Amino acid sequence: MSTPIDFARRERGRFYDELWRFLRIPSVSAKSEHDGDTERAAEWVRSQLEAAGLEAETIPTPGHPVVLGEWSGAGPDAPTILIYGHYDVQPPEPLELWDSPPFEPEIRDGRIYARGSADDKGQLFLHIKALEAHLATRGRLPVNVVVLAEGEEEVGSPNLVPFVKKHRDRLAADAVVISDSAMFAPGLPSLLFSLRGLAYFEIHATGPSTDLHSGAYGGAIRNPANALAKVIGDLHDENGRIAIRGFYDDIVDPSPETIAGFRQLPFDAEAYTGAVGAPPAGGESAYPPLERLWTRPTCDVCGLLSGYTGEGAKTVLPSKAMAKVSFRLVPGQSSERVKELLEAHLARVEPPGVDLELVELHGGRPWLARLEGPLYEAASRALEQSFGAAPVLAGEGGTIPIVVELEEILGASSLLLGFALPGANMHAPNEWFATDCFERGIDTLIRLYDELAAL
Amino acid sequence: MSTPIDFARRERGRFYDELWRFLRIPSVSAKSEHDGDTERAAEWVRSQLEAAGLEAETIPTPGHPVVLGEWSGAGPDAPTILIYGHYDVQPPEPLELWDSPPFEPEIRDGRIYARGSADDKGQLFLHIKALEAHLATRGRLPVNVVVLAEGEEEVGSPNLVPFVKKHRDRLAADAVVISDSAMFAPGLPSLLFSLRGLAYFEIHATGPSTDLHSGAYGGAIRNPANALAKVIGDLHDENGRIAIRGFYDDIVDPSPETIAGFRQLPFDAEAYTGAVGAPPAGGESAYPPLERLWTRPTCDVCGLLSGYTGEGAKTVLPSKAMAKVSFRLVPGQSSERVKELLEAHLARVEPPGVDLELVELHGGRPWLARLEGPLYEAASRALEQSFGAAPVLAGEGGTIPIVVELEEILGASSLLLGFALPGANMHAPNEWFATDCFERGIDTLIRLYDELAAL
Repeated sequence: MSTPIDFARRERGRFYDELWRFLRIPSVSAKSEHDGDTERAAEWVRSQLEAAGLEAETIPTPGHPVVLGEWSGAGPDAPTILIYGHYDVQPPEPLELWDSPPFEPEIRDGRIYARGSADDKGQLFLHIKALEAHLATRGRLPVNVVVLAEGEEEVGSPNLVPFVKKHRDRLAADAVVISDSAMFAPGLPSLLFSLRGLAYFEIHATGPSTDLHSGAYGGAIRNPANALAKVIGDLHDENGRIAIRGFYDDIVDPSPETIAGFRQLPFDAEAYTGAVGAPPAGGESAYPPLERLWTRPTCDVCGLLSGYTGEGAKTVLPSKAMAKVSFRLVPGQSSERVKELLEAHLARVEPPGVDLELVELHGGRPWLARLEGPLYEAASRALEQSFGAAPVLAGEGGTIPIVVELEEILGASSLLLGFALPGANMHAPNEWFATDCFERGIDTLIRLYDELAAL
Repeated sequence: MSTPIDFARRERGRFYDELWRFLRIPSVSAKSEHDGDTERAAEWVRSQLEAAGLEAETIPTPGHPVVLGEWSGAGPDAPTILIYGHYDVQPPEPLELWDSPPFEPEIRDGRIYARGSADDKGQLFLHIKALEAHLATRGRLPVNVVVLAEGEEEVGSPNLVPFVKKHRDRLAADAVVISDSAMFAPGLPSLLFSLRGLAYFEIHATGPSTDLHSGAYGGAIRNPANALAKVIGDLHDENGRIAIRGFYDDIVDPSPETIAGFRQLPFDAEAYTGAVGAPPAGGESAYPPLERLWTRPTCDVCGLLSGYTGEGAKTVLPSKAMAKVSFRLVPGQSSERVKELLEAHLARVEPPGVDLELVELHGGRPWLARLEGPLYEAASRALEQSFGAAPVLAGEGGTIPIVVELEEILGASSLLLGFALPGANMHAPNEWFATDCFERGIDTLIRLYDELAAL
């Protein structure tokens, strides 16, 4: 009898063909002119799940639909795994920077180039094919499965939490598996140890009631742009630490073993500098770059605006200035607490003649993996068998708020294992996914379901 | 025989009528759709000078024309006075903030409301009428006169210096008289003691080669917007002093008597705060407000731009940030020297991972009046007779680069006496000029020409 792994290898040509059809659908969730395409992508996922042998349906939301696939033939004593992914993609612009059209997939040098190849259509597709391989060869899955594929991840998942809450019983699971991230390096698979949280604010500085002449008033009136620059500049001390009283107090540090693991990971500063055009010279000087990215909070200006910004020399003393500031948070921190601390900080540093106002725009909680136990052991075995190397634990500097929400609403632990490679241009032109990772990824997930049967 | 003063009082009705016609011409030099109006205003000035009894012509430049009026009947032994003014005006926008249309002059509460009533049509008109009053009653002027009226003052006088150099012989004068500024307070005329200079730069901070995700890169990459804010914030110390090495070294302080005079001038902080919506809380804490405005240099951000400045929370780590910074300079300082000092400063504070670049946009030299001698005594007497109060010496925080240029090219001293009142909205909606100042202004200038005969 053929194994699921054999099946996947034999059917590989067809898998590529199907993936091509998926990638050709321009399901850009941010653009309403693509609403029909996004709907078509949802329907495509539904039909693929059904063809694989799951019961599947497309469920409307106030935005783009959610696709649910279900298979519960493993019985009430077997664990249930929720597989989360998304079928929408980032806008492809700027189009002129693509070497091949974003919605015409093409393999070059072992890479599948297309918008969505890595984020996340390609990775969602791996799961569908792994499920199909099990069902086609054995007529059953080793675990009960719920596939939850949304179409609004790239626009902040505005309808997903209400959906999950509403369908909490149908989505009940023992573990959540998400493939929407990257491996640490080629040949070196990784399991995510953490995601950073987010606290995003605008700081508004207001001085005089209108813009004034910088000659007639400069020296008497306190300039709110200078004042805001001072406030922003003083948010870090000379060692790159964030100089807000109490900011670090709540942090739960990773275990010494986790840190020791991070410190053994290779980090090539020269390659990093070459890739982004700047050295890893930001953040707290007391920590190496990977820890600054994964285990330490940040405070980054995302936008600055004041006065006259056009061509030439307009001598205006602006009446107001604005900064958008994003804090990345680590376990123990919350956007609510950071807001309180920042408000108190601004009250302390507000200079005479300028009012400072804080506006909260967005928050997202940090996530810390529950590393102990069979979920991580199962994933490690599956990855090691498929890639020939044990996975490393890696952090992720970004924020995926839905992970914490799914865990809390469903009472399940999450496993984040992704198969993209660093530099995959997930939100940029020339997004790609390695064919090697595509093939080993399916093998990994086939093995993972087997391993999870013992959960 | 009627005196010039009598004549001016008798003809006042006609003067207002003529001023109304001048103010109705929307000679907005910045807008090409008003080129015809600007030309019409030049022609109007020419015809008024001619009607007053001067020889007058309109001389084309690459931009708007210069109007020259000349009367040399006082003979080679009498002094020659160059009267400088401008017939162009600031754009009137935003129109909705005007209580009456900007080009439909209207008197309310003793104020002539119209664009250009104070800056500078109304004040240029005072000179024309004072000249007319002399010529109409005595058939001569006590001094030789050259009237130089330009149409590009509100766009930076791009063609004036070449014009003055080319016509240096025709413009030769013993003194330059300019009425384009304000009195210190109602009932308290003033003579300008100084103008500040200008050094205007852009500072560009560049980090990574493209905008990056603030989660994926925050903490590793040094954010150029944070870095620029730090640079700007540190340009002042905690006492409001400019923290650039050597910045204050070249300053020539006013005499102790001048300073003592400034310190006797009334300054109503509450009224100031009420007028601009912010207290006089900027600048160097060691100096009182008027000195911070008049005798101390400044460093004001005129514009800030970086990253994402639209609505909502875009988590971008920007690749670059820009600040426009205007320094007002005082006697002894120059934009060239300030550029050198700032360049050296930026080289000292440039952080690893961010490049700082300085771009010079504009410079203008400070001006210091030559206070000794008959020019100022003549003006003082004329003002005291007309306003019943001796003039005070006042500084001006803004920059009028043409003053220094005229003095140098012509070898003459300048007298800046203006008749607008504080709060006249010279570049803002609801610009006004007091009827009392209009009437006393003509009297003052009639007397001034008489006084200058002994120069």
